[in-house]
Amino acid sequence: MKAGPSQEDIRRHNLGTLLRFVHLRGPASRATLAESLGLNRSTIMALTSDLTAAGLVREELPRGPGRRAGRPSLVVRPESTRVYVLAFEVGVDRLVVARVGLGGVVLDRREGTRARDSDPSDLLGMLVAGARSLVRKAERDAVCVGAALGFPGTVRRSDDMIMFGPNLDVGDLRLGDALSRRLGLGIPVSVCNDANLGALAEHERGAGVGCDNLIYLHGDVGVGGGIIAHGRLLGGDEGFGGEIGHMIVNPGGRQCACGSKGCLEAEVGERTLLAHAGREEPVDKAGRDAVRDVVDAADRGDIVAREALHRVGTWLGLGVANLVNVFNPGLVIFGGTLRDIYLGAAAQIRSVLATGALDAPREKVRLRTAALGDDTTLVGAAEFAFAEVLADPLQVLARLRSVDVASPSTSGR
Amino acid sequence: MKAGPSQEDIRRHNLGTLLRFVHLRGPASRATLAESLGLNRSTIMALTSDLTAAGLVREELPRGPGRRAGRPSLVVRPESTRVYVLAFEVGVDRLVVARVGLGGVVLDRREGTRARDSDPSDLLGMLVAGARSLVRKAERDAVCVGAALGFPGTVRRSDDMIMFGPNLDVGDLRLGDALSRRLGLGIPVSVCNDANLGALAEHERGAGVGCDNLIYLHGDVGVGGGIIAHGRLLGGDEGFGGEIGHMIVNPGGRQCACGSKGCLEAEVGERTLLAHAGREEPVDKAGRDAVRDVVDAADRGDIVAREALHRVGTWLGLGVANLVNVFNPGLVIFGGTLRDIYLGAAAQIRSVLATGALDAPREKVRLRTAALGDDTTLVGAAEFAFAEVLADPLQVLARLRSVDVASPSTSGR
Repeated sequence: MKAGPSQEDIRRHNLGTLLRFVHLRGPASRATLAESLGLNRSTIMALTSDLTAAGLVREELPRGPGRRAGRPSLVVRPESTRVYVLAFEVGVDRLVVARVGLGGVVLDRREGTRARDSDPSDLLGMLVAGARSLVRKAERDAVCVGAALGFPGTVRRSDDMIMFGPNLDVGDLRLGDALSRRLGLGIPVSVCNDANLGALAEHERGAGVGCDNLIYLHGDVGVGGGIIAHGRLLGGDEGFGGEIGHMIVNPGGRQCACGSKGCLEAEVGERTLLAHAGREEPVDKAGRDAVRDVVDAADRGDIVAREALHRVGTWLGLGVANLVNVFNPGLVIFGGTLRDIYLGAAAQIRSVLATGALDAPREKVRLRTAALGDDTTLVGAAEFAFAEVLADPLQVLARLRSVDVASPSTSGR
Repeated sequence: MKAGPSQEDIRRHNLGTLLRFVHLRGPASRATLAESLGLNRSTIMALTSDLTAAGLVREELPRGPGRRAGRPSLVVRPESTRVYVLAFEVGVDRLVVARVGLGGVVLDRREGTRARDSDPSDLLGMLVAGARSLVRKAERDAVCVGAALGFPGTVRRSDDMIMFGPNLDVGDLRLGDALSRRLGLGIPVSVCNDANLGALAEHERGAGVGCDNLIYLHGDVGVGGGIIAHGRLLGGDEGFGGEIGHMIVNPGGRQCACGSKGCLEAEVGERTLLAHAGREEPVDKAGRDAVRDVVDAADRGDIVAREALHRVGTWLGLGVANLVNVFNPGLVIFGGTLRDIYLGAAAQIRSVLATGALDAPREKVRLRTAALGDDTTLVGAAEFAFAEVLADPLQVLARLRSVDVASPSTSGR
């Protein structure tokens, strides 16, 4: 139980809320900000001045055809090129590093493929090289305010330790610490479960904007999940929440990499779909392309491919029915390979959902594909990395720029 | 996105926080309150004065052997007999109505058994009669600040409509509205899922105090659930969240009352345990007593009873494993008949959990029985009914007593 906030807490909260507004919704006039945040114009002006002095936003005359006669309301715009984060995605088959500016603008990116049998120690070198090349190309006065990495495994929140990642072996490498040290930017690198980040991304910038209770299901080799409840990522007691891929849907079913049998991952993962479709490894293509091939074949009438999708769709539908009963989400979003599987097996998934879920929570639930396509994890990593500066904008900037902006409106104006 | 609170919001929040503190933790000195809430003594004094004037708390010299020499710090005590709620529990076999005072004191209660084939229309009459007899015995200046009813079914949050209650037919009776009208106390009666209330109760006053991520599983004829995530009851998009009883654990398994097959409820509910134990209905005893008989028989070495508990424990363990993977709870609590089943089949439940759940979320999860025994739903209903007065103490009291206490410290002192 905590007592109400102090004046300084409120100012910090308001600064963060204003910055978050233009970060997520784009440039806005002072008038819009005043109305949307429920604050008066003089408060908005003071907050904007502080954020401008800290180099987080700038105020400009409105651009484009919207200009009208009279004195125009200034538009508050995030400093996208001057304030950025580094977002890393470590997938089973690919690596991505991006420099993402305030406002969610992907300023620059480096991508690489990764062989499934490649050495874990190469991973760090590739990530560092990618990040350095991005940082070198940033503007001279730009500041990196955070970094986060999405990983297909179970990550403990207290120390970002990867506890379980059966589909991508990194040994006992402490990825976040090692990366932070090698980068030398003076910022920590958070490590997060990829599907948790996907849920965050779709909630803030994708198919789930405005829906505060949603489930994101992500297929890669494995199957991950992320849950947004009451507008927040459900982390559970230690940050392991959302391991939907290891919900047992078919007791005694197919062997799962986790040691159990009949997990959702074992029944609907990439390897299982390919096996059902008679495309056992080694195949010409791996990963998402191989899954897409099966879905395309089914579209063209290939009986084996159709049957494979039907089987996988049945278990996916059962998993979704369970989630609908337990969580009553407004939305279930399919990303990664599950996006393609959903598109190929939607009728079967909905049919199982209709018999397996209670009417009440099923009636209004919407099933959708990820709006951010292949970038769900990357966008989520960027949003996670921005969280600190959005919670306490001036303090974080002051620390990184070593400038004293701790007290109100003293930032050299 | 919402801007920070106003001064009036903060005052309301602080009043609520102080009242909530003494409501949940019992009488406390001003010194303790100042330290616990992080407020200075003069603020505590002002808040306490306002709450005293509104008749919500009183200040007293400390009682008992703890008194020491010198000027004693006054103790702030909730006005338990003057401020109360009505809590209703509608179970399949029993009805309970209680008058619960601020501080969580059960002041008085009425209980009745209910025949499973009794007429739904009798229900309302019995609840009204019980409540009236309780209200008549309240002190003359006592005020009823809320009422809530726990029901074994799926309840829509927006209008408290019971959407699904297969084990207790109430037809199209709008229980909350009807009860509120008949009572004539000028307060609405909220209707909530019983296991959701159980989760709330165990979180605030039972085995789950201090654990902000927990799952409560409740067995009656059916099986219900309630989930606390980030310290809040997980309602989902429309309030149907927590229907764990209809998670399918055994596809194609036993027929469930919901129309699906192999739901947790169908595999571990009262009827299934009795059937496995060869005690098909009609049996001498129904409900919790019949379940206890099976557990007792197993304890005495009855092979059939043991085997029945082993089968039920296997599915219960699988359900718990799924919940541990998906939520990473710190605690799973078993209540109602599941309390007895857990005690009788703990070894089997833990064994299935060990193979079915990932190591990371399993290692620290604790399994416990409900600390509030048979009163989980009733205590949860009382806490739910107190929520409004704890959120805005003076406003609610002013409305109910029609006294103007809207502005600070004007309450006739």
